[in-house]
Formats: sequence, C-alpha cells, structure tokens
Amino acid sequence: MYEHIPKTSIVVQKYGGTSVGNLEKIQAIADRVVSQVNAGWTRLAIVVSAMAGETNRLVGMVEQIHPKARSKSYDMAIAAGEQVSVGLMAAALEAKGLRAEPLLGYQLGVLTDEHHSRARIHSIQTDKIHQAWARGEIPVVAGFQGMASNQAITTLGRGGSDTSAVALAVALNAAFCEIDTDVDGVFTADPRLVKHAKLIERLEYDVALELAASGGKVLHNRCVELAAKNRLPLVVRNTFAPETGGRTVIMAFDEKEALEAPLVSGVTLDKDVAKVTLRNWRKENGPLLNVFSRVAKKGVNVDIIIYDAPDKTGSASVGFSVPDSELHLVREVIETFKSETGGTGLEMESLGGLAKISAVGLGMRSQSGVASRLFESLSRAEIEILMISTSEIKISCVVHADQAQKVMQTIHDTFL
Amino acid sequence: MYEHIPKTSIVVQKYGGTSVGNLEKIQAIADRVVSQVNAGWTRLAIVVSAMAGETNRLVGMVEQIHPKARSKSYDMAIAAGEQVSVGLMAAALEAKGLRAEPLLGYQLGVLTDEHHSRARIHSIQTDKIHQAWARGEIPVVAGFQGMASNQAITTLGRGGSDTSAVALAVALNAAFCEIDTDVDGVFTADPRLVKHAKLIERLEYDVALELAASGGKVLHNRCVELAAKNRLPLVVRNTFAPETGGRTVIMAFDEKEALEAPLVSGVTLDKDVAKVTLRNWRKENGPLLNVFSRVAKKGVNVDIIIYDAPDKTGSASVGFSVPDSELHLVREVIETFKSETGGTGLEMESLGGLAKISAVGLGMRSQSGVASRLFESLSRAEIEILMISTSEIKISCVVHADQAQKVMQTIHDTFL
Repeated sequence: MYEHIPKTSIVVQKYGGTSVGNLEKIQAIADRVVSQVNAGWTRLAIVVSAMAGETNRLVGMVEQIHPKARSKSYDMAIAAGEQVSVGLMAAALEAKGLRAEPLLGYQLGVLTDEHHSRARIHSIQTDKIHQAWARGEIPVVAGFQGMASNQAITTLGRGGSDTSAVALAVALNAAFCEIDTDVDGVFTADPRLVKHAKLIERLEYDVALELAASGGKVLHNRCVELAAKNRLPLVVRNTFAPETGGRTVIMAFDEKEALEAPLVSGVTLDKDVAKVTLRNWRKENGPLLNVFSRVAKKGVNVDIIIYDAPDKTGSASVGFSVPDSELHLVREVIETFKSETGGTGLEMESLGGLAKISAVGLGMRSQSGVASRLFESLSRAEIEILMISTSEIKISCVVHADQAQKVMQTIHDTFL
Repeated sequence: MYEHIPKTSIVVQKYGGTSVGNLEKIQAIADRVVSQVNAGWTRLAIVVSAMAGETNRLVGMVEQIHPKARSKSYDMAIAAGEQVSVGLMAAALEAKGLRAEPLLGYQLGVLTDEHHSRARIHSIQTDKIHQAWARGEIPVVAGFQGMASNQAITTLGRGGSDTSAVALAVALNAAFCEIDTDVDGVFTADPRLVKHAKLIERLEYDVALELAASGGKVLHNRCVELAAKNRLPLVVRNTFAPETGGRTVIMAFDEKEALEAPLVSGVTLDKDVAKVTLRNWRKENGPLLNVFSRVAKKGVNVDIIIYDAPDKTGSASVGFSVPDSELHLVREVIETFKSETGGTGLEMESLGGLAKISAVGLGMRSQSGVASRLFESLSRAEIEILMISTSEIKISCVVHADQAQKVMQTIHDTFL
C-alpha cells in the first residue's frame, strides 16, 4: 500500500495495547517511525492504546472502590493508561532524535458526548496536528479518550482506540489508517481453531463489518463502520512483522471486484450463545415485542430470532439466541412476564452451551446456492443445527459448542 | 484546631502517597471526609498524590526510554499517577454517597512556568472549587501537576503535591492547610534514632523551614516557604490516627510566644556529608568565588563554608561541606582547576562519610549561651567536631557519621 501513494500523504497509525506492551516494544515502534520519517513520510500521526493489561488494572481498582462508577472519576482514572503510553512513545521518538508532540484527548480537541465509559466522538480538531507537522514534529495522540463539553475526560469504551484512530484519520482526510496489532491481519478463520486458515489480503467494508460483528476479534464494529461511512481504507497489520509481510486492506470494492468477490471470505465463531424458546404464545400475551423490549431494557442483545406463526389453536412459538452469559437475566425477564400475564400456558425452554458459526462473503450477494452447499456439508458431517439465520452476505448457524470447531473446519474446507 | 474555627471555614487537606497507597486506605480517607461533611464542614478541598511507588515506577519507565527526557512527554507520563489517585478518591467519595468533582491541574487552572519536571506555580484559579462547593460537591484535586501557558502538562518536582496543596489553600484563602501523611507530625528528632523524641505541637515557620532544610523529611522547604510567606497555618498529622491524636501546627508566633519559644525545638540529621579543604590558596589562583561557581555549575550545593584569612606568606585555606554522594564531581572540578592554574601549590583534601547534626530553635534568637552549652555537652561526650556553622536560630556541626546518633542523643538530652 505504501508504495502506491505519494509520501506527502497523511497516514494515521494506531498501535494497540500488546504493541506498546513494554518498553522494548515501544522503542521498536519508535525505530519503525524513525525509518519511515527518514524515508520521507512526514505527515504521520501516531495513536496509542494503554499498555496491555493497564486498562484492566485501572478498571479493576475503580470498580473495587465503586462497582457502579461510570462517572467523571471513572473515566479520569482509566484514561491515565493512554496518557502514560503517549508520554512514553513521544519520549521514545525524542530519544531517537525525532521531535514529538504528545497530545491527550482534551489537548487535541477530541470532543465527545457525556456518556462516561462509552462516549461517542462528535468531532476532532486537527489544527494541533497540522501545527506539529509544520514544526517538523510527529504528533502522538492518546486513543480511547476525549473531552465532553463540560471539560470532563471521557472514554470511548473497549476498542475505543481503534475508533479514535479512524476518526482522526477521517478528520485529517488521511490516505489510510493503519491498525497495528498483534496479528498479521484478518484471517479466513481463527488459525488456532481451523487448519489452513489464510490471511485475507483485501476485504470489503460490509464483509469486514459482518466478520467483526460475528465474533472476529481483530477489529471493532464501530471503527469499521466509521471507516466504511467515510470510505477510509483500513490497513490491518502485525506491528512487529517486516514491512513486506502480509496485511489486510479493508476498502470499498468497485463493481467488478464485488462481482468477483469470493463466496465466503471468512468463517467466524461466537462461543457465548444460548437459545431461548417460548411456546404457546397467545394473543392474550400481547404483542411479542413486549418480551423483546423488556429483554433489551436489561441490556441483553437478542441476535437470531425465529418466529413460527400461530397454529390453528392460536398458539405461536418464538425462538431467539442471546449471550449465554446473560441467559439468567433473560430467564428472570420471562419469569416476571409469565407471572404478570399468568394462566395463559406460556412455556419457556432455554439451552445454554451453544456457539454460532457464521460464513461471510460478498459473493453470496450475486451467486445463489451457498446456503444449500453449506447445509449439505454440515449434514454430511452429522452436525445438529439448532438455529439458522441468513442475510445478504452472511449465513449463521447455532450448534452445540462442542461441535463448533468441527463446523468451522467443515465450512472452511468447503468454501476456502 | 478544628474546634476553634467555624465550620464554614475553607480547609484544604492533602493526602500523600503512602496515605493513598492502596484501595483500603483511599476508602478510609473517604470515610474520614464523609464524617467531616456530616459534621458540617462543607468547604473542604482534597489534594492527592500518586499512590506510593507509582511516580517512581513511571519515572523509571520514561528514564529507561529516554534518560535525559525532561520534556512535555516526561511530565505527561508521570502526571498520570496523580490522575489515577484523583479518579479513585472521587469514586470512593461517590461510593459513600458524597458528590465529588475530580480536577486535574489543567482543569482547575494550576498555571505554571514551562520548566518540565520542576515547574513553579504562577497562579491557581479557584472558580471551579467554588462552583463545586455551590453544587454540594467535594473537589478532589491532583497534586504535583499544572499546565504551562502552551497547554502542556507540567509537574512540580518531588514534594510537589505539598506545594500544590499550600498554593491552593493560599489561593482559596483557607483557614489552614492540613498535610496528612504517615507520621504524627514534626518531632524533636527522628524517633528511630533518638530516645525520648517528642511530637512538637506548635512550630514557628522559620524553625520549621530550618528543620526541613536541615534534613527533617516531613515537609518540603518550598511548601513551608510558601505557607510562611502567606501566613497560612499548616497542620501536619497522621492520616490514619484518630482525630484527637497528636499533630503539629506550623504558624506565625506572636511576640510573646516568640520570646518564650524553646531554645531548641528540634535536632536534625543529614547523613550525606563530605568535607573538602583547599590549602595554600594564593592570590594567583584568583578569587575563591571561581571555585564555588564552578562547583555550583555542576549542580552541587555547597553547605557550610569555613574560610581562614591568608597567613603572612599569603597562603589562605578554605573548607566547605558538600553532599558525600556528589564529592566525586567536586573533586573533578578542583582537579581541573588545579591543572588550569597549575604550579601554585594549591592542595586539596577531602573527607567523606560525615554527617551534619543541627539544633534549631527560635529561642536562640533572644537567649545566648546555647552554642557553648551544646559544644560543652559534645566535648564531654568525646565527640570530634569537624565543622561548625551557626545562624540566628540554628547550630550545625559536622562529625563522623558513625558518631551521628550519639551526637543527636546528646544534644536532645541537653535541650529537650
């Protein structure tokens, strides 16, 4: 990618928590930046996360003191992690002869709403970045943090540093945003689980989004969405791999590319799945929406929903999947609902210990038969499928967790 | 002290690194603040240091990356320690039902010069403190940090949190500033070294300053100076002692009190002392000042200076004390000086492993005979005194370090 764009281009590089996990790694990143500056790249901006483990340590302390703190105080304490990384990274660049401009969220002007611990970025001011470049300095920006209109420090929630980097790249109208992390890019499947998993070289935004949403852990949904919306190319690469090593470029595909895109680009796994079935739902129970809105109020995300229209007796049934770790909350909601609308014979079944495997590919849009090939292969492998959900570019099936790996491998072998 | 002032008074409390050293301690401090607020004190402001060990950890990391970093980056990284403490302390107050306003240096408006890692406070804005009180909130302020005019984070150097607290108390026109630490107050001598050492209940600023400057480690010079200049009473107490426990109040004495002040209030020890003697100094060597200014340029503080006027042959001698740990630097300076002005017969002797014991007391001002009583007692104890220095309220003597404890006990037994 670097070879095809002029060296005067603006590039944002984001280094994650494992990449800045110790002093040696920070110094190695500084070496990389120095060599890029020496090669003529002068409009680099660096975004850093907290050192690996640091945010957890800080969150652990605040939550031990105040389990429900999601306030100014909470964000102030946990934003310290990125602050240390920025100071260390800027010092490392200075030690190697570059000039650096360390910038915290409030100093740069990362303006957010006031939802502490899950703030959203409203805007990013870029004057200080341009001023730093004009002075020959490399700006080093704290990811994950911003400032609300009342001047309080806010944080963006997990994965927030990626979002910071993409938002900054968008604000700067950068050529691309590089996400430097601890894997070589996005793979067709988790190589620890699936044999012959391969690095994906080019990925379309929608597919990347589905991969992120369906359990692929390399990128966060929010950051891909933001990049997609602004047509900003993302480059995912391994921080400490050679520059010539593999990487994944996430970008818009033109029509021809879209048509030629693979049927399945990747297979993902979500291990935290449970299935809830409500049987004998009757008109007297009111609209089904009532149950789902109560579940949503508990903060539980319902994923797949399967609805069977009422039979002749007027009894309908509905199945849906939720995170297994939140199944107890859903059970409470339903029990309460049953006792409030008692005597209608509503029954609940629930089954935990499940997993969802998704196959995602842009090619599904234009070519048919993917679903049938997939189910055929699973049937041959004697897999019991508990739920199915399909969308334009994704097919998901829920199975018993102990079969998940076999399912992934089967789908991967079939399509990749 | 609390009993004698109205509960509407403004009080600044500063909790040091050991006081906020772990979560239990932070919660215990929050309990104390809650009980004070419940008792009717509503205009409290809390200043906190970094958790014990944290600043050292952060400094260690930055210096490992860039040994000479004393820049924006350095201060940004190490200011994170106080930021975490502020977040945790505010969260602890919130957990106990109070409302807290966490404030970093830049948020409050602690404006400093631009000397990173040793900045001086120019001014402190207090609007946000008053606004917090008006909303019924307890402001929790980060010690040790401020902001330069270019918006960079600055830090004040070691002991800076005490200075932050005193400067804030002065800006707020507080009734007093409480320094909550890990000792009960200022003692007549270090109780680990001297038998029968007692807590001093009331101490005059000048005496407190001399005690701080002569090796008493409870308070930092800068903070006492600032309090003295503004006639702000300081209360030094043990964070976790009962409210009725001992404490030291440092304040201005009126004329009568000053007259009745003890001859000796405290005995201090400085263990890092060496003596340098230059013999056969001649006119050809130029003014003696030349040597001292060269020593000063190396950053070495010369303490006691003893000068013997030239004898009949025109040969003078001068003795001075310096920190033993910096004796090697002084030797280098003198050797260079000798080689530059060679052939004049200038000789240098040096002796390390010494200690300076000082007796400090306001009463010395008005009563004579203190020095002779002191030297008499040391002579009876067969102590060899190597250097002597006296000022209006202090007598210091340099002895071999292995005799230091005996000297302290002898002086303490004589006067206290």
